[in-house]
This record gives sequence, C-alpha cells and structure tokens, in this order.
Amino acid sequence: MSLIVQKFGGSSVADATSIARVAKRVVDTKQAGNQVVVVVSAMGDTTDELLDLANAISPNPPAREMDILLTAGERISMALLAMAISELGVQAQAFTGQQAGVITDTAHGNARIAAVTPKRIQQSLDAGSIAIVAGFQGVTKTTNDVTTLGRGGSDTTAVALAAALNADVCEIYTDVDGMFTADPRIVPTARRIERISTEETLEMAAHGAKILHLRAVEYARRYGVTLHVRSSFSENTGTLVTDEEPEEGKMEDPLISGVAHDRSQAKVTVIDVPDVPGSAARVFEVVAAAGVNLDMIVQNVPTTKGSGVTDISFTLNSDHAERAANALRDHREEIGYWDVVFDNGVGKLSLVGAGMRSHPGVAAKLFGAIRDSGINIEMISTSEIRISVITRRRDLDKAVRAVHEAFELDAEQIEAVVYGGTGR
Amino acid sequence: MSLIVQKFGGSSVADATSIARVAKRVVDTKQAGNQVVVVVSAMGDTTDELLDLANAISPNPPAREMDILLTAGERISMALLAMAISELGVQAQAFTGQQAGVITDTAHGNARIAAVTPKRIQQSLDAGSIAIVAGFQGVTKTTNDVTTLGRGGSDTTAVALAAALNADVCEIYTDVDGMFTADPRIVPTARRIERISTEETLEMAAHGAKILHLRAVEYARRYGVTLHVRSSFSENTGTLVTDEEPEEGKMEDPLISGVAHDRSQAKVTVIDVPDVPGSAARVFEVVAAAGVNLDMIVQNVPTTKGSGVTDISFTLNSDHAERAANALRDHREEIGYWDVVFDNGVGKLSLVGAGMRSHPGVAAKLFGAIRDSGINIEMISTSEIRISVITRRRDLDKAVRAVHEAFELDAEQIEAVVYGGTGR
Repeated sequence: MSLIVQKFGGSSVADATSIARVAKRVVDTKQAGNQVVVVVSAMGDTTDELLDLANAISPNPPAREMDILLTAGERISMALLAMAISELGVQAQAFTGQQAGVITDTAHGNARIAAVTPKRIQQSLDAGSIAIVAGFQGVTKTTNDVTTLGRGGSDTTAVALAAALNADVCEIYTDVDGMFTADPRIVPTARRIERISTEETLEMAAHGAKILHLRAVEYARRYGVTLHVRSSFSENTGTLVTDEEPEEGKMEDPLISGVAHDRSQAKVTVIDVPDVPGSAARVFEVVAAAGVNLDMIVQNVPTTKGSGVTDISFTLNSDHAERAANALRDHREEIGYWDVVFDNGVGKLSLVGAGMRSHPGVAAKLFGAIRDSGINIEMISTSEIRISVITRRRDLDKAVRAVHEAFELDAEQIEAVVYGGTGR
Repeated sequence: MSLIVQKFGGSSVADATSIARVAKRVVDTKQAGNQVVVVVSAMGDTTDELLDLANAISPNPPAREMDILLTAGERISMALLAMAISELGVQAQAFTGQQAGVITDTAHGNARIAAVTPKRIQQSLDAGSIAIVAGFQGVTKTTNDVTTLGRGGSDTTAVALAAALNADVCEIYTDVDGMFTADPRIVPTARRIERISTEETLEMAAHGAKILHLRAVEYARRYGVTLHVRSSFSENTGTLVTDEEPEEGKMEDPLISGVAHDRSQAKVTVIDVPDVPGSAARVFEVVAAAGVNLDMIVQNVPTTKGSGVTDISFTLNSDHAERAANALRDHREEIGYWDVVFDNGVGKLSLVGAGMRSHPGVAAKLFGAIRDSGINIEMISTSEIRISVITRRRDLDKAVRAVHEAFELDAEQIEAVVYGGTGR
C-alpha cells in the first residue's frame, strides 16, 4: 500500500462543483488501494477577499491577526472537501495545521516550518480514513499562535507532510499538465517535461517558472520527497520531480530542461561610483542592510568611463527596487557616487539544463539565437546548470521563442492546455 | 478598574464600517479606564453562506467538519476587529475559543461548555491589551477538536468568560435599546425595561422573547453574572438583567415585566386515546423517545367525549412536529388511538412578572383582556411568575397589544427603535 500526499490549489477547489470533482479524484486514489493525505488551499479568491477586508479596515494590520484572518480560508475548504468525500461514502477527517502537527517559528506572514509531528494524521490513516489538511498554516510551539507560511505555503505544507509521513509521492495538482520546456502561453509548442531533477527545478522556479514554489522544491530536495506535478483537470501523466534514478536505468541528462522567464525584475544602476577599494562593497552592504536580495550584478570596467569612476548595475525583484534605491540615496554622500537610476523595463530569460555541465558551447548558442532575433543582451549571469540574460521586457517573449526553437525543444504537436487560474 | 465583557452579534460586525464602529465603542470603554474582553459573532450572513456551501456539497454533512466550517466565520470577524482596534492605536489580541480556554463536551453542533480556563485572556488583559474572543466555539478536552455551541452560542461564550474572569458586567449588544415590555415591532408603545431579574428573563426568553438566549441567561443566573443588554447603534442605557438588589434600596417587584410571544409553536392533537391508566403516559413516552421536547399539554376530561376515550393535545416547536407525529403514527396500534392531527396555525402569548406571586387576579385580568378583544384561548399553562395562552396565530399580535394595554405597560412616548437584523 502506498501513501500519497495530494495538494490541490485554490482554483481546484473554487466552488462546490470543483470540490466535488477533487473529492472524486481523492476517493479514486484511495480506492486504488492507497493511503491518502490531501492538502488544500483556500477556495479561489477567498484569500484575496479576506485581504481586501483587512485593507478596508487597516492599511497596516497586525501580522498575528492577519494570519488568523487568512487561515480561515483553508479551514473552509478543508471542511467542505471532507464533507464532499463523506458524501461519496468514504471516511474523511479534516485537520488544521495545528492538528496536523505543523510547528513553525514565530515569523507571522512568512513562517518557516520548524517541525512536523503528524501523529493525528497517522492515526487517521491507520483507521482507514482520508486525512484532509489545511495548507499554508502552522502554529507556534510555545504560544499556539496561528502562523502562515507565505507564498507557496500550501505546496510546502504538502511536501513537509510527505517527508514527515515518509510518503511515496507528493502530488501537486495545478491547472496545467505538468512542467513544460517553456510557458505554453508564450511558446504554444512547448514540450511537457517527463522527469526532471530537483536541482534543475530549483533553477527553473528561482528564475520565473511559476508551477512549483522554490521553498517547496528546496524542502523536497532536502528530504528526498518525490514530487509529481499534475493537472487536476485531466488524467494526463504530468511531470516527475525526483533525484532518483529512473527504473529503466540511468539516462544521459538531456542537454536542456527548459527556458524560464521572469518579468518581475527591475534594474538599478549606481552611476560614477569612485573606483577605490571598498566602494562597490559599500554599495552592496547598504542594499543588504535594507533587507533586499539582489539577483544579477554587473560592474563596468573603469577604463571605459575614465576619471577613476565606474557604474554598478544590479537586478532585483521590482517590488524591492524602491527600498533599495532609497537606502542608497541615504548614503550618497558617504559612498560618493553621482546618481541612482531605476529601470523597470527589463526581463530575464534563463536556460536551465543539467547537461550543460558537460557540454561547452551552450552559452554561445544561446547568445547567437538572441542576437539573430535582433534582441540586445544587457546583463549575463550563469550557474553550473543555468545561463540567464537580461533583455528589454518588451523583447522577452520573442527571445524565449527564439531560444526554445534554437535548442530544438518544441514538441511534435501542441500538447499544453492551460485550464484556469493558478492556486496559492 | 472594572472588567467588562462586551458581546457583539453578526449585525454589529456585518461589514468594515460596522466593525470600525464597534472598534470605536470598545476603545472608548477601554479608555474610560476598564479592562475589556470582546466576544464576536460571525459577520452578518457569513454563517448562512457557509451553511449554503455545505448543503450544496452534502445534504447531511458530518458534524465534526460542519463545526470546523462554521467556526471560520468568527475567526474572520475577530481578526478584523482586532485590526480595527489596532488601527485606533490601541493594543488588541484575537483569540480562538481554544486559545480562550473554552472547553466543551463532544456534542458537535450543540456542545455544552464544560470548563473555561481563560489564562491567556487574563495575561492579555494584564499586559494592557483588549482581548477579542471568537464566540460560538470551543474545543474538546482530549482531542482538541473544534466544537460549536449551537443557537445563542456567542451570548453563552460571553457569559461564560464573564463568569470565569469574574467580570463586573457582561454587555450584550444587539439592534434594539434593550429588553421591552413587548416586541416593539408589534407594540410600538412598548416600554424599555430598566432592570429585570434572571428568573423573569428566563421566562421571557423561553417563551419567545428573542433578545437573549435561554442558555446564556441560565448561565448568568447560575454564576451570578450581571447582563447589560444594549444597542450597538446608540448610547442609550439599555436593560440590566441581575438578581442583585438595586443600589437605591430594594424596590417592590413590578407586577408585570412584559408580554412575550412565540410564533414557532405548533399543536398536535391525538384523538380518541383510550381512557385507561398509562395511555397518556405512553403517548408522551413515544414523543420523548423521538427526542422532542413538549411545551404545553392539555388532556380533555373523558366525559365530554363519552365512550371511554379522550383527546390529548400538546404544543411543541413546529420544526419538531413532523418527527413527533411520525413517532406517534409508528405506535398507533399499540396505543390504540384513532388519529393524530397537526395544527401549524397557533401562537403563544406569555405574560411574565415576578409580582404575580403576590398578586392574585392577574390570570383573570389576562383572560378578560383577550376575551374582550374577541380572541379565543385554546390552551393555558402557568408557572409561578408566568401565564401562557395559545391562540390562533393570526390573532396573536392583536392579543399582545390588548394585554399590553390592559396591564398599562405602554410607555408615555414611543422610545423603541429597531436598527437592523438580529445577530447570532
């Protein structure tokens, strides 16, 4: 008997009809002879509606109460799903994050899981029941205060429970048939990825692929949880995210897994920074002290500007650009630069593939494909298995298609279907 | 420094504007130098919407999951109220029933409070904070499962917390200015009751007055909690429910406290029950076994019918009439009666007053007033401080007005204002 954790996002449980469909799917899995734990997000737009209510009352609501408010959404969906499963004649019990043993730190709004002790879940499974667990939420160890896990929280709940219960697989249900070599809305010929390593998935997620959340993949990688990304709207096979060898023997890593893109980046340029030791370091110290994470960094060679000054550019999430720019302005005199320029018109393309390690020439081919489509590359960064470039945001889709084609990633026929919104 | 528990129903926290108004009121109470605990119901129609969702999924949802679902409403309103108070610059913390220490038995949907250990509430008050508590909910002692307290649950939560915290007063906010000598929607000249005993309030609540729930009043009576019924829409003085002597010295009990009415009753008549020992008892055993509570009972004198048979009539909540009638039909042969007749056209008028004890002639005056207005009395029952009569339901309002006038309960000017719906 296998133990399967299934996670359904908000679009999969948006209304009574959807909840009944999910119940059917869960019951089918159970009746195929498996033990089943289900993790659910809040229904459809519930979380946004609760956020709107909170914002109507206070522009800056207290974090502890915000978490109590937001977790109401998952309580509603978990109770309704348990009812829908009971209605099919199968025993189901719903559990809050607390009841499921999800213990977190006290960082309300973005708590990290400290421990998972799913004793009641195991008891429920042992008694032949399906266990429904509210995603996105936990409880602090000492005060029993409700916390939320931040973006991707329900995915993380599912993976953490799968690890703690030693589940065979953690199925993440979404509104597409798995992970693709590019976003099918941009590249209609994108190919479904059958199997991919956690390392590649992390690079894809960190650089704009929206299907899986970074934290959940990190958790899965650390605890060796096999993820199975599937559509809740079809029976298609989806994508397996695992570092285990495939049963049919080891295969060569494919050269390229896919092309990710990210429109959320902005570029900040600090102009005429004195070219003396420590100036660049001081720029990054100031930004780090403001709590902003940087992505790519480029420092011009000083001789191209002359007169002992240089420009420093970096990219970051555009939501944090204002904060970084303000922090730098506060230290302008001290650092001695001339100006800070903010550019919200950039996009990032990332080519990811474990096979790059052993194949030189991938970068040259990437740059060539982009150049041939008449698009300028503004910044470059690389890891062992990824090459990222910054372009104008308006050129990003065109660049993605050009690179996808150059690396022969197209499927033989169009297979991607996007079914609805995306869950939390 | 006084400790005040304030309870606000669903209509008082129906939207962001209402919540802000309640927050202002709570903060005013705090800044007048009191410690404040606030108990809230779910916002407006939230509970009904959740019930609709559940019914769309299952006609007979499991009780444990139903309770998880329904308690989401109070979690939302308590979090929002805490935010609204914080927005006014005053510290507030929200607590679930569990965090507030409301321990119940395991009767999901209609749990009874077994213990209240409000340690965290006391800590919150000691730290200078306002404590917001979700009404209507508790948690079982051994399994930490969420329970709901059934109808009037939030009132009961407020009274139970007031008792456990040894509060000076428990203020129940509603949409009228207190308790009145009759429902102001029927008798516009009804007078506000300034002060009333718990015994009279129990009789009023048990016989149709909707302002306070029976269980909450029973709890207040048992633990000596002073209730103060007030409008959340005005600053008027409301009604004090207490058994303590008024400070200005003992007053004579007023003859009559008020006229309650109840449209939810139905009458069942069992025709031609054999007039032998045990037949009537058997009728009531069968009804009791079906879990139905009876209110008034009338057995005709057998000689009026002749031939050794009699009719037995009783009233009960009309929601339970079908169940009682079915139970009786299942035992028709055994009991040997001829037929069961169901009458959904009755109404009940109850005159309540502690002064009745020492004033004979109240009943005669009551019957006279009803007779003079041309209305027939079908059944009568009395307690020490109450006389109830059954009339046709269509005559009920007219009877209430006639009795109210006969006992000179009218105010000198119209003072009752009904502001909105009623909360839970």
